[in-house]
Amino acid sequence: TTFDFAVIPGDGIGPEVIAEARRILQAVLDSASVEATWTEYSLGASHWKDTGETLSEETLERLRGHDAILFGAVGADPQDTRVPSGLIERELLLKLRFSLDHSINLRPARTYPGTATPLAGDPEIDFVVVREGTEGPYVGNGGTIRRGTAHELATEVSLNTAHGVRRVVADAFARAERRRGRLTLVHKHNVLTHAGDLWRRTVEAAAAEHPAVSWDYMHVDAATIHMVQDPGRFDVIVTDNLFGDILTDLAAAVTGGIGLAASGSINAEGTAPSMFEPVHGSAPDIAGQQIADPTAAVLSGALMLQHLGLTEAASRLEQAVHAQLAAWAEEPEGSRGLSTAQRGEAILSRLG
Amino acid sequence: TTFDFAVIPGDGIGPEVIAEARRILQAVLDSASVEATWTEYSLGASHWKDTGETLSEETLERLRGHDAILFGAVGADPQDTRVPSGLIERELLLKLRFSLDHSINLRPARTYPGTATPLAGDPEIDFVVVREGTEGPYVGNGGTIRRGTAHELATEVSLNTAHGVRRVVADAFARAERRRGRLTLVHKHNVLTHAGDLWRRTVEAAAAEHPAVSWDYMHVDAATIHMVQDPGRFDVIVTDNLFGDILTDLAAAVTGGIGLAASGSINAEGTAPSMFEPVHGSAPDIAGQQIADPTAAVLSGALMLQHLGLTEAASRLEQAVHAQLAAWAEEPEGSRGLSTAQRGEAILSRLG
Ligand SMILES: CC(C)[C@H](C(=O)O)[C@@H](O)C(=O)O
Ligand SMILES: CC(C)[C@H](C(=O)O)[C@@H](O)C(=O)O
Repeated sequence: TTFDFAVIPGDGIGPEVIAEARRILQAVLDSASVEATWTEYSLGASHWKDTGETLSEETLERLRGHDAILFGAVGADPQDTRVPSGLIERELLLKLRFSLDHSINLRPARTYPGTATPLAGDPEIDFVVVREGTEGPYVGNGGTIRRGTAHELATEVSLNTAHGVRRVVADAFARAERRRGRLTLVHKHNVLTHAGDLWRRTVEAAAAEHPAVSWDYMHVDAATIHMVQDPGRFDVIVTDNLFGDILTDLAAAVTGGIGLAASGSINAEGTAPSMFEPVHGSAPDIAGQQIADPTAAVLSGALMLQHLGLTEAASRLEQAVHAQLAAWAEEPEGSRGLSTAQRGEAILSRLG
Repeated sequence: TTFDFAVIPGDGIGPEVIAEARRILQAVLDSASVEATWTEYSLGASHWKDTGETLSEETLERLRGHDAILFGAVGADPQDTRVPSGLIERELLLKLRFSLDHSINLRPARTYPGTATPLAGDPEIDFVVVREGTEGPYVGNGGTIRRGTAHELATEVSLNTAHGVRRVVADAFARAERRRGRLTLVHKHNVLTHAGDLWRRTVEAAAAEHPAVSWDYMHVDAATIHMVQDPGRFDVIVTDNLFGDILTDLAAAVTGGIGLAASGSINAEGTAPSMFEPVHGSAPDIAGQQIADPTAAVLSGALMLQHLGLTEAASRLEQAVHAQLAAWAEEPEGSRGLSTAQRGEAILSRLG
């Protein structure tokens, strides 16, 4: 079989980190004798400035034909007022997630050798946040009346369905079973009673079917405290779209690694390609200087292989990354001063 | 003038910490020759179990007559299944905030001598979160259809008005002017476009009237990263009800002091009494053992004095707390092993 990948390098440091991820993935696939084709799509803020396209129906249709999408980062320089704030995020990134039904937004959070956490005592952390990706307050269901007057009212509606919550909860329980068997539901059901009640009943029902998994519930505010004071307690966190957005940035911060955080936006039913991307942004301030860290993009590639069932290739790649991070941790200078390409080269050399 | 205070000790450790706060406040008021009366109200989970009352209209009317309310903590033991989950939070705590129009939920976050933060390098932190208190997703405007079926849909609606946003933004700018002149608006306007747009325009308009304050905008997810990596950058944060809930727990965690975090729920127009309470909960697991730390309750009392214009008394009290925390920081054992009353006694002795 040949895997047919779409690549969206995007803006800023996106192209630089994706170049490394792509050649490393190619090497891993080669040595597993897996054939792959790569089709690059020019999308993002620059592309919009050049062409006026955020994501046309035609491009979306072409993307649908691929087996998976490797995504870099998008977003203009915040100083660049030609790009309306939030446009690329909504009309490209969120549009991809919603159109391709990316119900499972998967965000592993872990410490690696040599990366210091900002926490005292430098704890070991290894959990995964399974964030819902197609519902909640992200649905764009808001409105404004009397805009600009003293009587303005603005609303935002969070939509939560049994269908949407069930599939992400099922995925989270399955992951917990393959991991350390612990699941934490994070919500705010004492305030958001209707949505919270749906989430809770759904988790209770799934728990009955997964007796090997023990679970607990945590309010989102309390979860931030635990994530700072005792992040080692988490194994799998399942939560809604907005809470997941907040908690995964916090998770990346406490593990010390925005530069290492990988993610997958997964179509649970396989009706459209899933998408894999580093959590970091396009970092326009350091773009084009070959100083960005490609590790998160490479690890997102490993998640992609994993998702496609290329389990061995995925773990070879992960191990190569871990080995290289461990090696840097031993060296006095670590990876300091290495270019984006040199970092990629080093990981490549670990593939043996 | 006589100040007429209501006191709601509540559940768990509430009565223990409020007892200390009250006698310390009384001492401060005495030496300022300010007369005060205190009326205790039995409310909370235990009271509900005894009487079935969460907060009757009659009690609410009586509370309205006071100058301010000192609140301990409410909430049953989570093991106690007789108390429906969320009932006391919604029907007492949130009902007070909404009925008494507590638009400004004020939550200072700072480090104190001797309290270690969980962050490496133990940074100095001193900011205040001005959280909106009467709107947003907290309004209880949700619904469910087809409950329990595969077609269930649950909604939560966030309501945001010019009136509500303006008054909290005005308060935040005024505070920033009295502090270090920096304000950060936290929202998620790239996703919650309608509410985010209202918040942003409101801040822009207020900024024009407060040229001495410089301000910036931060997405809530990014704000969690800064709070972990660089909390010293914040001076005044203004944000919505839900984001404020999440960020203030995170703030209490990074400052190392849930046991020290004070808060005020303030009626901006003075049409009803404001309420002051420690951020910590009722901690049923350690209740009745005289081991709870009363400091957050005492500092909430200082916020209350401040709010009532008793500025000198408020700063005397704050200074006493700071002096005592500094003294403990010098001692090898610190405050370890001291009872709730002994801690209160120590603060009292610092009042001189
Ligand atoms: C860019 C933004 C719309 C997006 C989100 O809120 O989901 C980002 O923060 C993320 O976490 O992927
Ligand atoms: C108890 C709960 C309703 C409350 C809130 O969400 O506001 C609490 O978390 C707080 O921050 O005061």
